Amino acid sequence: MDKPTIADVARLAGVTKGTVSHVYNGHRPISAATKKKVISAALSLDWSPNYNAQALAVQRANAVGIVLARDPSVLASDTFFPIFLSGVETVLAKHGVALVLQVVNGHEMECEAYRTMAQGRVDGVIVLDLSRNDYRIPLLKKLQLNAVLADSCNSSKDRGFSNVWVDDRAPIKILISHLLELGHRRIAHVSGPMQYVHSYERAQCYIETMGSGELLRTGDFTANSGVECTKDLLSSSNPPTAIIYSNDVMATAGLSYAQSQGFKIPEDLAVAGFDDDPISEHLNPPLTSVYTNAFKRGQITADRLLAEINGALPESVETEPSRIRFRASTGDR
Amino acid sequence: MDKPTIADVARLAGVTKGTVSHVYNGHRPISAATKKKVISAALSLDWSPNYNAQALAVQRANAVGIVLARDPSVLASDTFFPIFLSGVETVLAKHGVALVLQVVNGHEMECEAYRTMAQGRVDGVIVLDLSRNDYRIPLLKKLQLNAVLADSCNSSKDRGFSNVWVDDRAPIKILISHLLELGHRRIAHVSGPMQYVHSYERAQCYIETMGSGELLRTGDFTANSGVECTKDLLSSSNPPTAIIYSNDVMATAGLSYAQSQGFKIPEDLAVAGFDDDPISEHLNPPLTSVYTNAFKRGQITADRLLAEINGALPESVETEPSRIRFRASTGDR
Repeated sequence: MDKPTIADVARLAGVTKGTVSHVYNGHRPISAATKKKVISAALSLDWSPNYNAQALAVQRANAVGIVLARDPSVLASDTFFPIFLSGVETVLAKHGVALVLQVVNGHEMECEAYRTMAQGRVDGVIVLDLSRNDYRIPLLKKLQLNAVLADSCNSSKDRGFSNVWVDDRAPIKILISHLLELGHRRIAHVSGPMQYVHSYERAQCYIETMGSGELLRTGDFTANSGVECTKDLLSSSNPPTAIIYSNDVMATAGLSYAQSQGFKIPEDLAVAGFDDDPISEHLNPPLTSVYTNAFKRGQITADRLLAEINGALPESVETEPSRIRFRASTGDR
Repeated sequence: MDKPTIADVARLAGVTKGTVSHVYNGHRPISAATKKKVISAALSLDWSPNYNAQALAVQRANAVGIVLARDPSVLASDTFFPIFLSGVETVLAKHGVALVLQVVNGHEMECEAYRTMAQGRVDGVIVLDLSRNDYRIPLLKKLQLNAVLADSCNSSKDRGFSNVWVDDRAPIKILISHLLELGHRRIAHVSGPMQYVHSYERAQCYIETMGSGELLRTGDFTANSGVECTKDLLSSSNPPTAIIYSNDVMATAGLSYAQSQGFKIPEDLAVAGFDDDPISEHLNPPLTSVYTNAFKRGQITADRLLAEINGALPESVETEPSRIRFRASTGDR
């Protein structure tokens, strides 16, 4: 059988092609009974409106975009993104909006991806992995693309874009004060790359709270960098008794390395991570971590973007604070 | 400034609008010098051809789709998919083809996603998480959608679709023979859900090689199910001395649970996983696992789909065999 056409649907539903089209584009009110007839005819024929034709007609792509500039190994280590993505998709699905995802390698490819998206492929983008002085902000302005930034502080307030943010300093403060209460004085931090707002915010808060950056080491979110930074810290003349890592992958690798060197966790070394990976509560010992509510943040971000595509003004939205999941890797609370 | 138009690009490059359009749609030969002028004019103005208009003109969406029917926690536990995706994207980027990704929940939403994709949103799809007697096969045929199946055996040979597959039985055989050589006789297997071809193939091969399914337990790829199956196996009257898990997340959770119960790994219990997560070589002890070359498989699958969109006939492609990464969790080889 050939692909079904709008004429087939109209014939089966006993209406005109124009009526079928109005059911789907919403340009004219249609009675519930007619709507039902048309939709069940379309379903039984496996017909849907042609999205390209429809998108051109209403000047909409019915799609939003995400561009990720990440190395495959970093992408595979990150559990925040897939859960965030699931949250985004639940909202998009309700509105029949597609997600266009592009994983790029390098600055030029990233710019080209946004440019292509701006030329009718999507109606707006979600911007992740925000950098300090992110060059994408002026680019997106120039491209006149709707955008919502997923941020780790309220830095983007005056940049003309919506901003769905969480306070990334608060959990660091809570973790440090918990470790201080337990008697720790030499508390280290293994951060992510400092160009990222989230890594920077966490590290800045760590330095301010501890009053020193002596025990700060910069990783890159991979397991390997977790091992290297831990090795460096534990081999120093005055090593830390506790380490807070900026993600769970580095924390897990660091914890395992310390164990392999004979350190008992948490007796000899307390360890905490960030993002609360699904595996973290099942490690030995279970890992204390920061639960960042990625699913909910994905939903809020997508809601915000769709509102803006429909004409709402940019807005800064603070999401609910991250919670610490205290587990055995930091000892009894 | 308003969005740049094709007229702006033509003016800046000193050519007609028709010439600009031919540079991008490739319908007429254009000299290298003219092409260069047009492309640099377009770049300096941040202009790209409108993909919706272009797609309609050539009857192409310039996009391919992936529909994932997965729970967020399973999505977050799976490192195969993000690495596979990176491989897919490197190929798509070279050809200016976008990826439309839809994460769905339930059968109805999944069917609707494929139907929408078939109506002009994409030119073809990549089908993952293949089930035995997958209902998507007849659906995709009915929708007349180009599709490439990522499979774990050559089951899809006669189904009329391209099939990029790897032999998922071979690594199970190698792991079992390795454990037998080390003296293990009670070797267990924790599988994924049996409706998936990959889980089924691995479990079937395990039963055939061991001659019994007594020590087979069915998990669901989550850490939690890894713990539950391990608990069940270790508390039996004649427990196994080795466990092969169908992914690294279940293996890591199982290994940690066993350690928490006082089992020494590998002395009291040998443990092996599947997928070789980036964290696995950094665990304590490092985890023996099956490296499945997800990046390369993503590239081959995308290449195959683009070839088919351009008129090539369906083909079955076997990818290079998975390799076992032997590490301390199974003891010395």
